[in-house]
Amino acid sequence: MANSKFEYVKQFEQPDTLLPNTWIVVRVDGRGFTKFANKHNFAKPNDRRALDVMNAAAKAVVTEIPDITIAYGVSDEYSFVFHKTSTLFERRASKLVSTIVSTFTAYYIYWWPTYFPDSPLAPPLPSFDGRAVCYPSLQNLRDYMSWRQVDCHINNLYNTTFWALIQQGGMDGKEAEKELAGTFAADKNEILFTRFKINYNNEPEIYKKGSVIFRDYELVEPDSHQVAEEVENMTEPAQQSRTQMENDRKKRAKARVTVEHLDIIKDEFWDRRPWLLSGKPGRIPKLP
Amino acid sequence: MANSKFEYVKQFEQPDTLLPNTWIVVRVDGRGFTKFANKHNFAKPNDRRALDVMNAAAKAVVTEIPDITIAYGVSDEYSFVFHKTSTLFERRASKLVSTIVSTFTAYYIYWWPTYFPDSPLAPPLPSFDGRAVCYPSLQNLRDYMSWRQVDCHINNLYNTTFWALIQQGGMDGKEAEKELAGTFAADKNEILFTRFKINYNNEPEIYKKGSVIFRDYELVEPDSHQVAEEVENMTEPAQQSRTQMENDRKKRAKARVTVEHLDIIKDEFWDRRPWLLSGKPGRIPKLP
Amino acid sequence: MANSKFEYVKQFEQPDTLLPNTWIVVRVDGRGFTKFANKHNFAKPNDRRALDVMNAAAKAVVTEIPDITIAYGVSDEYSFVFHKTSTLFERRASKLVSTIVSTFTAYYIYWWPTYFPDSPLAPPLPSFDGRAVCYPSLQNLRDYMSWRQVDCHINNLYNTTFWALIQQGGMDGKEAEKELAGTFAADKNEILFTRFKINYNNEPEIYKKGSVIFRDYELVEPDSHQVAEEVENMTEPAQQSRTQMENDRKKRAKARVTVEHLDIIKDEFWDRRPWLLSGKPGRIPKLP
Amino acid sequence: MANSKFEYVKQFEQPDTLLPNTWIVVRVDGRGFTKFANKHNFAKPNDRRALDVMNAAAKAVVTEIPDITIAYGVSDEYSFVFHKTSTLFERRASKLVSTIVSTFTAYYIYWWPTYFPDSPLAPPLPSFDGRAVCYPSLQNLRDYMSWRQVDCHINNLYNTTFWALIQQGGMDGKEAEKELAGTFAADKNEILFTRFKINYNNEPEIYKKGSVIFRDYELVEPDSHQVAEEVENMTEPAQQSRTQMENDRKKRAKARVTVEHLDIIKDEFWDRRPWLLSGKPGRIPKLP
Repeated sequence: MANSKFEYVKQFEQPDTLLPNTWIVVRVDGRGFTKFANKHNFAKPNDRRALDVMNAAAKAVVTEIPDITIAYGVSDEYSFVFHKTSTLFERRASKLVSTIVSTFTAYYIYWWPTYFPDSPLAPPLPSFDGRAVCYPSLQNLRDYMSWRQVDCHINNLYNTTFWALIQQGGMDGKEAEKELAGTFAADKNEILFTRFKINYNNEPEIYKKGSVIFRDYELVEPDSHQVAEEVENMTEPAQQSRTQMENDRKKRAKARVTVEHLDIIKDEFWDRRPWLLSGKPGRIPKLP
Repeated sequence: MANSKFEYVKQFEQPDTLLPNTWIVVRVDGRGFTKFANKHNFAKPNDRRALDVMNAAAKAVVTEIPDITIAYGVSDEYSFVFHKTSTLFERRASKLVSTIVSTFTAYYIYWWPTYFPDSPLAPPLPSFDGRAVCYPSLQNLRDYMSWRQVDCHINNLYNTTFWALIQQGGMDGKEAEKELAGTFAADKNEILFTRFKINYNNEPEIYKKGSVIFRDYELVEPDSHQVAEEVENMTEPAQQSRTQMENDRKKRAKARVTVEHLDIIKDEFWDRRPWLLSGKPGRIPKLP
Repeated sequence: MANSKFEYVKQFEQPDTLLPNTWIVVRVDGRGFTKFANKHNFAKPNDRRALDVMNAAAKAVVTEIPDITIAYGVSDEYSFVFHKTSTLFERRASKLVSTIVSTFTAYYIYWWPTYFPDSPLAPPLPSFDGRAVCYPSLQNLRDYMSWRQVDCHINNLYNTTFWALIQQGGMDGKEAEKELAGTFAADKNEILFTRFKINYNNEPEIYKKGSVIFRDYELVEPDSHQVAEEVENMTEPAQQSRTQMENDRKKRAKARVTVEHLDIIKDEFWDRRPWLLSGKPGRIPKLP
Repeated sequence: MANSKFEYVKQFEQPDTLLPNTWIVVRVDGRGFTKFANKHNFAKPNDRRALDVMNAAAKAVVTEIPDITIAYGVSDEYSFVFHKTSTLFERRASKLVSTIVSTFTAYYIYWWPTYFPDSPLAPPLPSFDGRAVCYPSLQNLRDYMSWRQVDCHINNLYNTTFWALIQQGGMDGKEAEKELAGTFAADKNEILFTRFKINYNNEPEIYKKGSVIFRDYELVEPDSHQVAEEVENMTEPAQQSRTQMENDRKKRAKARVTVEHLDIIKDEFWDRRPWLLSGKPGRIPKLP
């Protein structure tokens, strides 16, 4: 039975290659996680186990896909950044998105029992959707990352106050919502401190800053380089030698993938870790 | 900390809506499954447990997403078909693909221990990629489905003969490959029958035909309808009433999702199950 | 001076191939034609010369590009339909759109002095924009064509009444607009007939129906065929023999391109001209 | 006759918005210009009138569309560059491409009789196709422009030598082609000088360099600024005030559009004309 008469159907597949020389961000979001969180009694305003299983899954993704230069996660979402010179899967959007979403989901399900030993999964299972967005300039990428971290901050301050009003202040959801309507950050800090003796600054960094995942090399003195400019002047990967690329890949594979809770809005984070933007691996830290 | 100065980055997300009134096929493929199959000692030429876990995952996907009208799987791939009138996720490609790939992966990992109790998963975990393709006409869709099933047949006949030559004929891989070079289907059938007493026709249907998943309603007499024409004359879903759509959704949710191993190339399969193409639920079979 | 170091920039060109087996409509629209019409004192509500130069340009486009099966024009817009099996320019959107827009513009400028001998063009010159839209089914295509012709009718009835109120009724624009607010077709017919002795049905067909351009073959008895079904069952053009395609091309080149003002909403137009939808040239009419 | 039942066809139009913050190059190419050039006896290797009518058309395009920052043309092609912050037509590809192609064609046909008074146009008329490509970084854009100008140089040196061999050397086309096979630039210069007393450096700049079109402001001392960096740090146009944009538009409208034949590969051209990359209009030169 020859297959040739049906093979024409392959022509209908349409290319979805992403523009070269742009930073690719693949964002993964939990589907229907409000319901899922209730089913497994996630603690409010933050459930440390839930964040830990997200981070474990994201760390596995970054480890398995060395073309990812950095990832940032908060709540039930995670953003994975491919360096602008990456040519993984010829930059095909559906291949990049589906691979990341699938790998992330696999590890999420796999690690779940480690973090939730008393609340086993049962159908319907948690799942995630994803999409890819291209950012042409470093500034655009930095602004995207800042956008997500500011969002983390705004939501966490709100949620922390909202749940304090309920859990410690005895309000119900509607009352708490009304109490917070129209308030500014300073007002929420004030409510937390005056009524509940909570100093928001002392809240855990993972809740306030979210989580950032990257390969860890030796930190660099902030004034010793000019990464941003170099990065913008890069053109395309074909101009790098194959040997160089191979060496870089090996170095990257050796580097430790780390999960931190740092400010990624200010320049310092990026200045001290030039490898994140240059795409060139740094120096592996010596063991103490 | 206002987030407005960073929010412009949302503008970079580009629409990826699929053309209305076309059949959407989302195909999911195992990533690096040759290696993965070896790691877990998949039986050759077919591993029933491996197909069963694929089918369990695909059945869960079809059950959770009622807009899927039919799914077809073989080896480490599965194709999910959305009816051409579906407006799920506004037909956004990345949303459709990522949701299916994630749900499929979640169930694959979840059901694995049931089918492979003695070969637990360990990192690196299995994962899948996916893509969406649009088919404008019913004939194109039928040809796509036929293409996959013919492929299943061709590969299975080859693999069955190849592994018989090795497992029962004592050849190594290179010898078996050479033996089969240039042979036609009839030759392979002959080799199987003459040398190994294997009548290919008696091989299990799941290996010869692959697996097809759909909602099960009462079969229809093949000459009692004219689905194909009706289907082509449909235009777009907005013209259906909301009440009708809601009723259909409920009926679909009640229907049993079934996994079969049938010929989907010939007309009979489709003629007796008009609901697959019409998108209108059939009659729920009475219990005996 | 070798050019190789710059050639990488070619990689940035992204494919824009339109989905196979769909009807491609390229619509061309005049840019800023209200102003342009005033500059050249177009008659109101319709300027016959302005329509004639549009039709001359569109006829040249259809003549030069045999893959166009039919075109429909009204006011300062024209829609050109490529048969769903067309593979012209590998179905690249920008190539199809730009070629049609450029050819249309060239003939518009070229023929202008013939139709407007007393009102020569001067910068800024008239220009047109264009876009391509795919329609998967024959019904969708027919509905698109009907949409444009109904639009022609609605606008022409409105404009005819509006300008009668002004030119013969002595109203100004605001008064006429107010007079017509909320009126139905029947009301406008009544106004035309009662106040101005105009029977709308007797208005010229070119104003009421717009213009349709196609290759002219012998008309067919409406009940002698089943085109719609045949057309939907076509798959893709590669399945036609090259000789057949070459013969068809020659026949098409011989056919006379005609400009008519007919109803294209009802089936009759299409039933009697099966070549429009089948893509197969008809019989060249014998000379009398 | 209500139109609502057909209006659903509007849904099939798919967005084709180009990625924000990227340089958009729309390239226009003559269709079948080899044949067209023969029909009108274009002089070989270069026809000054043919270039002049191209330049006149391109100058009109740049004048009418102030969002174009620079244009470069050679032979029968022209590239128009939109500044990366441009939001003209919401950056829709088909709208940008078709508008430029149509405007260019209109002026080409309109100005033809001025430059070719003795060779009037007749059907089939000349036409052009076009496409849009996005370049994320300034370097990519500069490399694109360099690519076209190097191409101009390579082709012109070849053509100048090729036609000298024929017109002055008495060879036929095949002999000239064979003579030049495998030669380098130095060889061609040598042939020109030794055999035909032609010093290639003395050839007209328009043939050697092509034509570059831009708005003319006062030149700037090359070391007085840092445009490239500023440009890369721009983000998106919404951050500019509306008043500022309006003022810029007016200044641009006042500026003289000029056609020059300069080296656009070296930095000097860009350094002395910072307005080309900054998008901010320069200082209008004082009249002498």
